[in-house]
Amino acid sequence: MSKFAKRSKKAGLPPGTLVHIGKKRSEKTRIRLINYDESSFLEKETEATEEYCAAKAATGITWVNIDGIHQIDLLQRIGDCFGLHPLVLEDIMNTDQRPKMEDFGDYVYIVLKMLTLNDRGEITAEQVSLILGKNFVLSFREQNSAIFDPVVERIKSGKGFVRKAGADYLAYALLDAVVDHYFVVLEKREEEIDDLEEDVIANATPSTLQRIHKLRRELIFLRKAIFPFRNVISALERGESAFFDQSSRIYLRDIYDHTIHIIDTLETFRDLATGLLDIYLSSVSNRMNAVMRVLTVIATIFMPLTFLAGVYGMNFKHMPELEWTWGYPAILLLMAAVGISMQVYFRKKKWL
Amino acid sequence: MSKFAKRSKKAGLPPGTLVHIGKKRSEKTRIRLINYDESSFLEKETEATEEYCAAKAATGITWVNIDGIHQIDLLQRIGDCFGLHPLVLEDIMNTDQRPKMEDFGDYVYIVLKMLTLNDRGEITAEQVSLILGKNFVLSFREQNSAIFDPVVERIKSGKGFVRKAGADYLAYALLDAVVDHYFVVLEKREEEIDDLEEDVIANATPSTLQRIHKLRRELIFLRKAIFPFRNVISALERGESAFFDQSSRIYLRDIYDHTIHIIDTLETFRDLATGLLDIYLSSVSNRMNAVMRVLTVIATIFMPLTFLAGVYGMNFKHMPELEWTWGYPAILLLMAAVGISMQVYFRKKKWL
Amino acid sequence: MSKFAKRSKKAGLPPGTLVHIGKKRSEKTRIRLINYDESSFLEKETEATEEYCAAKAATGITWVNIDGIHQIDLLQRIGDCFGLHPLVLEDIMNTDQRPKMEDFGDYVYIVLKMLTLNDRGEITAEQVSLILGKNFVLSFREQNSAIFDPVVERIKSGKGFVRKAGADYLAYALLDAVVDHYFVVLEKREEEIDDLEEDVIANATPSTLQRIHKLRRELIFLRKAIFPFRNVISALERGESAFFDQSSRIYLRDIYDHTIHIIDTLETFRDLATGLLDIYLSSVSNRMNAVMRVLTVIATIFMPLTFLAGVYGMNFKHMPELEWTWGYPAILLLMAAVGISMQVYFRKKKWL
Amino acid sequence: MSKFAKRSKKAGLPPGTLVHIGKKRSEKTRIRLINYDESSFLEKETEATEEYCAAKAATGITWVNIDGIHQIDLLQRIGDCFGLHPLVLEDIMNTDQRPKMEDFGDYVYIVLKMLTLNDRGEITAEQVSLILGKNFVLSFREQNSAIFDPVVERIKSGKGFVRKAGADYLAYALLDAVVDHYFVVLEKREEEIDDLEEDVIANATPSTLQRIHKLRRELIFLRKAIFPFRNVISALERGESAFFDQSSRIYLRDIYDHTIHIIDTLETFRDLATGLLDIYLSSVSNRMNAVMRVLTVIATIFMPLTFLAGVYGMNFKHMPELEWTWGYPAILLLMAAVGISMQVYFRKKKWL
Amino acid sequence: MSKFAKRSKKAGLPPGTLVHIGKKRSEKTRIRLINYDESSFLEKETEATEEYCAAKAATGITWVNIDGIHQIDLLQRIGDCFGLHPLVLEDIMNTDQRPKMEDFGDYVYIVLKMLTLNDRGEITAEQVSLILGKNFVLSFREQNSAIFDPVVERIKSGKGFVRKAGADYLAYALLDAVVDHYFVVLEKREEEIDDLEEDVIANATPSTLQRIHKLRRELIFLRKAIFPFRNVISALERGESAFFDQSSRIYLRDIYDHTIHIIDTLETFRDLATGLLDIYLSSVSNRMNAVMRVLTVIATIFMPLTFLAGVYGMNFKHMPELEWTWGYPAILLLMAAVGISMQVYFRKKKWL
Repeated sequence: MSKFAKRSKKAGLPPGTLVHIGKKRSEKTRIRLINYDESSFLEKETEATEEYCAAKAATGITWVNIDGIHQIDLLQRIGDCFGLHPLVLEDIMNTDQRPKMEDFGDYVYIVLKMLTLNDRGEITAEQVSLILGKNFVLSFREQNSAIFDPVVERIKSGKGFVRKAGADYLAYALLDAVVDHYFVVLEKREEEIDDLEEDVIANATPSTLQRIHKLRRELIFLRKAIFPFRNVISALERGESAFFDQSSRIYLRDIYDHTIHIIDTLETFRDLATGLLDIYLSSVSNRMNAVMRVLTVIATIFMPLTFLAGVYGMNFKHMPELEWTWGYPAILLLMAAVGISMQVYFRKKKWL
Repeated sequence: MSKFAKRSKKAGLPPGTLVHIGKKRSEKTRIRLINYDESSFLEKETEATEEYCAAKAATGITWVNIDGIHQIDLLQRIGDCFGLHPLVLEDIMNTDQRPKMEDFGDYVYIVLKMLTLNDRGEITAEQVSLILGKNFVLSFREQNSAIFDPVVERIKSGKGFVRKAGADYLAYALLDAVVDHYFVVLEKREEEIDDLEEDVIANATPSTLQRIHKLRRELIFLRKAIFPFRNVISALERGESAFFDQSSRIYLRDIYDHTIHIIDTLETFRDLATGLLDIYLSSVSNRMNAVMRVLTVIATIFMPLTFLAGVYGMNFKHMPELEWTWGYPAILLLMAAVGISMQVYFRKKKWL
Repeated sequence: MSKFAKRSKKAGLPPGTLVHIGKKRSEKTRIRLINYDESSFLEKETEATEEYCAAKAATGITWVNIDGIHQIDLLQRIGDCFGLHPLVLEDIMNTDQRPKMEDFGDYVYIVLKMLTLNDRGEITAEQVSLILGKNFVLSFREQNSAIFDPVVERIKSGKGFVRKAGADYLAYALLDAVVDHYFVVLEKREEEIDDLEEDVIANATPSTLQRIHKLRRELIFLRKAIFPFRNVISALERGESAFFDQSSRIYLRDIYDHTIHIIDTLETFRDLATGLLDIYLSSVSNRMNAVMRVLTVIATIFMPLTFLAGVYGMNFKHMPELEWTWGYPAILLLMAAVGISMQVYFRKKKWL
Repeated sequence: MSKFAKRSKKAGLPPGTLVHIGKKRSEKTRIRLINYDESSFLEKETEATEEYCAAKAATGITWVNIDGIHQIDLLQRIGDCFGLHPLVLEDIMNTDQRPKMEDFGDYVYIVLKMLTLNDRGEITAEQVSLILGKNFVLSFREQNSAIFDPVVERIKSGKGFVRKAGADYLAYALLDAVVDHYFVVLEKREEEIDDLEEDVIANATPSTLQRIHKLRRELIFLRKAIFPFRNVISALERGESAFFDQSSRIYLRDIYDHTIHIIDTLETFRDLATGLLDIYLSSVSNRMNAVMRVLTVIATIFMPLTFLAGVYGMNFKHMPELEWTWGYPAILLLMAAVGISMQVYFRKKKWL
Repeated sequence: MSKFAKRSKKAGLPPGTLVHIGKKRSEKTRIRLINYDESSFLEKETEATEEYCAAKAATGITWVNIDGIHQIDLLQRIGDCFGLHPLVLEDIMNTDQRPKMEDFGDYVYIVLKMLTLNDRGEITAEQVSLILGKNFVLSFREQNSAIFDPVVERIKSGKGFVRKAGADYLAYALLDAVVDHYFVVLEKREEEIDDLEEDVIANATPSTLQRIHKLRRELIFLRKAIFPFRNVISALERGESAFFDQSSRIYLRDIYDHTIHIIDTLETFRDLATGLLDIYLSSVSNRMNAVMRVLTVIATIFMPLTFLAGVYGMNFKHMPELEWTWGYPAILLLMAAVGISMQVYFRKKKWL
């Protein structure tokens, strides 16, 4: 789970100053330029500013996907060419953004979190920024990832509605791709919860507690990453930005439903995690109680017996019992009687 | 309780792609076609697409009930024939929907959860989708179930208002049938709570804890299944869809009241379940305390006595008490005195 | 505290079917008919349908109070005569209603809970339904009760404003009588809380816990019974029903204030009950700690002493101390020294 | 802290019946009449109804302060003379009111709680009712108190704005005097919290717990007394009553800010009190743990030693060790070795 | 963390009376006067009232920064000269303000908290008041601090947008400087949380608990200091004050985003702190359980063995075993068998 980023290094700088805030990356920024309309499709990787700048004026829909946001000069050039506000560029470079939507008249800026699972099953959050203009979409990601590939495929193959629709539909398809991946992450966490549930009852160890704690921490961060997106998508669906056509709002409503569903599920997970903690604590205390009960039973049986043995170990001159022929067997019988009656008493009280 | 379904297999697919998400079913889909007006009634099972497609144009009210939503081609044909939006078909096949209502102009789409109890008294949730058009109602269920039978009976017999009313009243009757069953489920859970309440005081065992945990988990899922339906029915009652007549809104208000009542009751159950957990934990700790108190009493009585016996078991040459004739009875008396005064002290302190 | 009623027996029945849901009653239904205007007053008990039906058309204000709602045919006749909607009759017979208000144009239907204390000090909730028309009020109760008597007295004696005012003022007076009784119930519970507070500090036993639990359960049910009434009375006060005159709204505001006050108090009680539970648990654990501390002190004093006695109880041939003349007194002194220094240590640590 | 008053004695009485609900008082009611304008000032104590009744018609601003609300006839006379609604008089006499504001056209009625500290540092709440008319203010208090004295002084001396302003400013000044005293009470409680915080860490005893409980109870009641006042003052500030001039609203905003500040602080205190309880419980359990650890260490050291001593106290004929010359010193050495290695083990495990 | 200030000393004073409420300061008040427009820049320290008063009428933007608010006469002079309302001056001097915004027509008054870390890493909160007029900004701080220096630098160097923009942009820049420092404080606390998280698992001591408690307390106060600022900045962004130009609202939106982000983070920290406490308590109880388990194992092994030794230490005349040649080895073997089988039993039960 990514941490609260080092935003403090910006304190005191004028607004709009570009500073990359986020995980240090060394990969080169990759820019993929796609231009299509109903009949044509063009895709190329490029670094020449003029090329994608020209794309803005081209016919059809232009999609420029930028993987890597740590090269300040490159982002500056893109910003100049597409006329982006300095604050937008600043936000794109700062990976510690809360999901939000801002309409700047010429374009709408949407930022949200992309969630993926790394090799160790841990959740990694990366920031995705979308700029939707009249006939273009810019997408910024922290690094290359496979999440947008199905969308590229659909455009290339002409499958689905995407080639016939406008830039807004493309933006929708990208948002949808990101949100669909939330489900993948949640399902993994549901398996973890089921797993923990069995563990917590059968075999509660301190490491179980740590796993519950880790889960709760992840749920807190997931909530923080996803919750504000609800308002973003709801604002878009209500038509607060003119860039989304009336006809594509039905698709936004679909994303909205998914987002609500995910938030609902997160809340459910949270309740379940709290329940798990309760069960864990009860399990541990139950086991402790069982241990203590055994101690009590052993102690309360052997203490009186040891006392009896002690009495007849005393060295008084005049202890008539010691002289009796049947003294020893008698005392052994007495001890057995005391021990057994103690046990019976405990069984009746259900302590054994 | 149904789980969070495997929605991840849809990640990356274009919107409107039909994929069945839910429990694997092998039963064949059954389609029941009912057509009625004030004077006539017709019912048949059919699989021929033309037949129910024709029904759309027939006079009177047409109700097509589809039990089984896993056959993609069949749903596609129904969708084509009634002009359903691909996203609606997608939602019908995805049994992991949140209750919602969407008005598509030609028809309104309502999805909600049907709750029933299986043989082992467990709650099973199935998805019910309703399509309400001008003069037809389509109902989709995951499998055959008896819940709609009383409605069929009422139409057949001409009892009640249903034959005189429009398709909206039929849709209302189906919603009502589903919501009425929520009460059946809740009553079973109330009995469970009463049962647990007695158990928790008289006989708190770890299995009681597991039952409380299971109850809480069920309440979390019930809440998730029912809560969003409140907004659906409230939107319908406020007249957000023109398909419900002014005159049938009074009936929707009735369902709304029931839904609120159910949600209230769920909240109450939740509070009670939390209370049960508190009582359980206190009970367990009370019993533990009783056990510990006994240990303490036994230990604190016999430790001093054993010590005394130990003293007179020492082998010193010069221990005058050992020579005394009344030494032994005297020490026994002393021991009795110590033991009794300890007991008196404990009783005064209310530890025994 | 009344339970969640057996509403399930209605599942599948058409709406408006009359089924009595509630406690089985065998008393005969009693109907009291009162008719009054500024100068006249008439009161009689009757069962003849015509009589109270005629009353509807009479001059002055007519109040029909029905005690007993389990006779389906009688309610049907009343419903027919006053033109009540089948859903209203259904709701009147179903004692498991949430407080609500519904305006049917010709009359307004108000349902709320009447709370009384039975002989054992337990809270009993009964349902009261009011129908307020242009010049009549119908009141339905589950059984006879003294709560409306002061209102009857005020009408009879002509005391207060009631004889001069309209049917709305009568309805207000009945609501006020019910709400005033809420205070009686709350005061009893406040005494219980004070009582528990003393108990929980001075003398926390498992039965205290059960009393706290019972209190919390009651507060949950009280909240469920009273909370929704706030919206009912607020809607009436805002003038959502035309049956309440502008001039009587000031009285409704008074009831509204009382209701808010009661809800506030319930919340306060809830917080106090939670506080009581915390104190109880701390008390129990404090007492346990005291017990354990004694065990520890006794054990840690006598264990070393017993060990010492054990050492000199060993039978080695060559144990020079045993031969010493002052060996025995010396060892006794040593034991005393160990015991006393242990005690001093514990007192310093504040364990004794 | 005042309790939930005996409101039940009013159940069944017609609305507007005057019954004094509150602490029994025997002091005579004191009435102070002040009349002032920019140039004149008149103050007298009087009991003659005509005098303050006449005051109503006098020029300038008239302020009648009534200390004592238990004399029904006197209040009735005042009510008649100033044309107060019976429900207002009823509310003034009932000291169990929730803070509220009601505009009756001719005057506005404001009721709030005055909080003071008594000699033992306990919070006492008294009810203050204000009636603000065109050119007069009536203030009702349960008994004499010094809180309004500074306002009287300011009027008398002509200091500040008050002599130039209208009756609304006087009402504001009185509200401000009451709210300012809330700060005094809160500061005392903050000191108590700081005090408790030190105590809870250094010296947690059961009496600390009782103090925390008392504090929480007080905070619950403070909240109940102050919270609703926020809506009162906010309604006045928004101009819901025409009696407050546009120009005096800036002063109401000042009170509003204070009230919000106080509520914020109460919430903070509540959080702190909850934190204190957590710390208390942890402290107690930490100390218990320390005690138990000592018990464990002592027991686990001496049990094996005592066992060893027991072995060589056995009376078998053939126990070769007993005959050895160095048997006794050897066993003592063994015992020392066992004891020391146990201690080392415990220190390594950090139990000692 | 600053405390609830001694506001009580103002109780009874007329509104608008200037009293300094806050930490006693002895430093002399420092006044810095800056005047600039696109082409000129002037900065000087001054105490002469005429100078900054004249500044008000000067061309360009005038910024007067006052460090120190404890000199009543000086503030009075400034207030007179810039026409500030007495209530504003009172609020500036009272360092116990809740963040708020008030538009007085001629100027808008904004008050918020500046958070810095002192040498010991503790959070200190100081109050910053801003007065924004047509062409001037007054800023009041409790004492000199470096936080505004970067803004001065930017104005001096002409870097960024500030020299071209109006007084509203200057006010924005100052607010931004304060809010940016919140991030610095939060990052320090995040490090503390990470630190505590490791500690709590590896090495939970009572001092860990105190650190958690201190953290929670700080979070409570941070929330109180920052939360209300959200509404302030949101009101400004919505354009409730005409002093902020349409064009500078985009910058306010930026601050708004930061504020929301900070509040989100505070909530997250709060959840994490609660989680830490849970883990701490579980850790402590886990360690306790380990200790108790050892006690139990030792006690249950040695108690039966000691009993056996006691039996053969009895002094009965007729105890045949004592005479057997192999009696002693036999009993030692028996003891070993009992001890080992106990151990096996415990290992199977997973208690060791």
